Amino acid sequence: MEDDSPQERWRRRTEIPLAIGSMLFLGAYATKVLAPDMGPGWHHFFMAVILGAWALFAVDYAVRWRMTGSGLKYIRTHWLETLVLLLPLLRPLRVVRLYEAIQMRHGEPRLSLYARVMVYAGLSVLLLGFAGALAVYHHEHLAPGADIRTFGDAVWWTCTTLSTVGYGDMAPVTPVGRLVAVGLMACGLGLLGAVTGSFSSWLIQVFTLEDAKRRARGRR
Amino acid sequence: MEDDSPQERWRRRTEIPLAIGSMLFLGAYATKVLAPDMGPGWHHFFMAVILGAWALFAVDYAVRWRMTGSGLKYIRTHWLETLVLLLPLLRPLRVVRLYEAIQMRHGEPRLSLYARVMVYAGLSVLLLGFAGALAVYHHEHLAPGADIRTFGDAVWWTCTTLSTVGYGDMAPVTPVGRLVAVGLMACGLGLLGAVTGSFSSWLIQVFTLEDAKRRARGRR
Amino acid sequence: MEDDSPQERWRRRTEIPLAIGSMLFLGAYATKVLAPDMGPGWHHFFMAVILGAWALFAVDYAVRWRMTGSGLKYIRTHWLETLVLLLPLLRPLRVVRLYEAIQMRHGEPRLSLYARVMVYAGLSVLLLGFAGALAVYHHEHLAPGADIRTFGDAVWWTCTTLSTVGYGDMAPVTPVGRLVAVGLMACGLGLLGAVTGSFSSWLIQVFTLEDAKRRARGRR
Amino acid sequence: MEDDSPQERWRRRTEIPLAIGSMLFLGAYATKVLAPDMGPGWHHFFMAVILGAWALFAVDYAVRWRMTGSGLKYIRTHWLETLVLLLPLLRPLRVVRLYEAIQMRHGEPRLSLYARVMVYAGLSVLLLGFAGALAVYHHEHLAPGADIRTFGDAVWWTCTTLSTVGYGDMAPVTPVGRLVAVGLMACGLGLLGAVTGSFSSWLIQVFTLEDAKRRARGRR
Repeated sequence: MEDDSPQERWRRRTEIPLAIGSMLFLGAYATKVLAPDMGPGWHHFFMAVILGAWALFAVDYAVRWRMTGSGLKYIRTHWLETLVLLLPLLRPLRVVRLYEAIQMRHGEPRLSLYARVMVYAGLSVLLLGFAGALAVYHHEHLAPGADIRTFGDAVWWTCTTLSTVGYGDMAPVTPVGRLVAVGLMACGLGLLGAVTGSFSSWLIQVFTLEDAKRRARGRR
Repeated sequence: MEDDSPQERWRRRTEIPLAIGSMLFLGAYATKVLAPDMGPGWHHFFMAVILGAWALFAVDYAVRWRMTGSGLKYIRTHWLETLVLLLPLLRPLRVVRLYEAIQMRHGEPRLSLYARVMVYAGLSVLLLGFAGALAVYHHEHLAPGADIRTFGDAVWWTCTTLSTVGYGDMAPVTPVGRLVAVGLMACGLGLLGAVTGSFSSWLIQVFTLEDAKRRARGRR
Repeated sequence: MEDDSPQERWRRRTEIPLAIGSMLFLGAYATKVLAPDMGPGWHHFFMAVILGAWALFAVDYAVRWRMTGSGLKYIRTHWLETLVLLLPLLRPLRVVRLYEAIQMRHGEPRLSLYARVMVYAGLSVLLLGFAGALAVYHHEHLAPGADIRTFGDAVWWTCTTLSTVGYGDMAPVTPVGRLVAVGLMACGLGLLGAVTGSFSSWLIQVFTLEDAKRRARGRR
Repeated sequence: MEDDSPQERWRRRTEIPLAIGSMLFLGAYATKVLAPDMGPGWHHFFMAVILGAWALFAVDYAVRWRMTGSGLKYIRTHWLETLVLLLPLLRPLRVVRLYEAIQMRHGEPRLSLYARVMVYAGLSVLLLGFAGALAVYHHEHLAPGADIRTFGDAVWWTCTTLSTVGYGDMAPVTPVGRLVAVGLMACGLGLLGAVTGSFSSWLIQVFTLEDAKRRARGRR
């Protein structure tokens, strides 16, 4: 925790700017996608915000790479960071981490383990779901033969996908839309795993406690 | 358990009236939705029951708020109670709690942990499924282009949603219907978690027991 | 294990006849449903087999009821037996129990706990899936507007339901077909729970073993 | 580990040739399916590769059978090997095993248990999904009334099936395609089990650690 390496210091100092950059990126992307009819001035403004945020991420990535001193190997060992650089819509997940950091700064985490897993899973799913719905809407709503025509449709489709229900009353038809969909399905599987896993481990814990109590009572 | 604070006493005393109020609310709502052709007299009667039950919930909420003595913070810390006040169709879940309380009053719970989880999950799913089917039927059956035309359709659609199967032979098309659907999907995920979790913890328990037996036998 | 009450002796003695009766019931029902064009003689023969098997189940149920000496309470406390009497297509599940009994007679169960759970879940799903596909085919294939026209369709639909995939390229449209479908969905949830639960408990066991090994190595 | 029976030596020696054979088989099959318009010379070449790889598998199976010295019983006790001989598209799963073996040869496995489960599940799903998409495309794309017309469609359909989402915007219509689909559904269930199971056991482990820490702190 009291790690004082340059990397760690960099991480701590860039934490909040990067989180703000992620939010700006998501907000500007959302505005550009959802309000395409705004004047060209606004258009350029939001484009600048998007590119600025991306530049911020790229600089952060470059500085980290430099600090480790490793060559091209860095791309392989830090494939997750590389992926997030290329798909900046995954960025807002950092907010979850920031939330955790803030919680930690206040001493012990105030929530129990299960509550924390639920809160993190919930936040991640909300952010990823929003980003996914945006991306799918962006690539689908003008495609010929598409079912997903409004942003409301995209949100509804995202919910059916994340819960693995999959009615199929609407489904993406473009390659990019389907790629995003596969990502959302993976999130859905993970969400299912998180819900089931926390429930199951909670049950096991309750059972172990009850068992211990019964044994303690029997001993007296 | 022997908590004698005013809040606790209020909770104990209002338990049964509130449960009855919830059942009346659900019953009156169901009758209004499923039998829209009854005379205006009956119509007003059921409307009165619904409003009366709602008033009961509001009074209970207000009294609890007063008792804690906290200001607007109450809404944030008791967001679940606030949500249930706004969506009274979630109320009947109290019956599950009442059932548990009755079980407890008879001394030790008579059912094992797994049976209890199954019974609670089953009851909750039945009540939520019924309320969800009602709400979806209410908002969908007259919408243009809707697939859910009869209450039977709504029940069938609810089952496919709760089990996360999701055929998609019918799907809600109105915003409210889709909002209810998202709630039901969340319940479906929870149900899956309950089934899987109890199965998994039961297996682990059985395995631990078998292991202990084998070791005990080996020691002799 | 060495229980010698009359009930237990009755159970042991009727085990094999009842299992044979269940298989005959399933076989005769399957033949009647899948080969409706056979001559009236065969028709009557299979009907007789079905009714004879059912009579066997009823006699067994009555004798058990008599033996316990309890009145109408029996129906409530043995609701599972009552249900199986009314829905004899659930009977073949007894074969799973018989398989277990045979395994036990050969001394210790030869399969590990996980393998046994897998074998039981697999056998149950196969039998229930076959019975469900038969029942759905029986009630759907002549219904107006039905998608499930051949027994192959019914089997395919059953598989998509049991795995909770639910494409919806075909879905039951009759009330009875949908009732059977809801039962199959419940089985699907259970199957998912069994697979997930055994995987999870197996992982936990492996982890505990690895942990113990590492600690033992550390101690040396 | 230091098993030096002839079977074990055979297994070790054939490991790499068989893995290469599997890859060649998959590659040749994929080329034949995806590029049906190549000249007859290439056609015969890939056919020869497929048959040669199959012959390799058959020889390996025969040698193993011989070595055990058991008669027809071998088919029953080694049903998995027999199945894989008949469905050589399942072969590439050996690569997962080879990967494990290579990991092991480098001393201790370098990945934690959860990471290993994730890597194996991911690799298996990728390989099975690719093989399944190929097989479904092969049997569906020319069938009358089929929805799966391009290999892209087949991959997209495979993803919706493996995640148990199942939109149903496309579904196999031929018997062979449906058989493959049922296999993929089973894989999907297993994948769900792997994700959920590892998440749940990871949570339990974290909880146990936290608990131990808290107790250790309390003791001081």
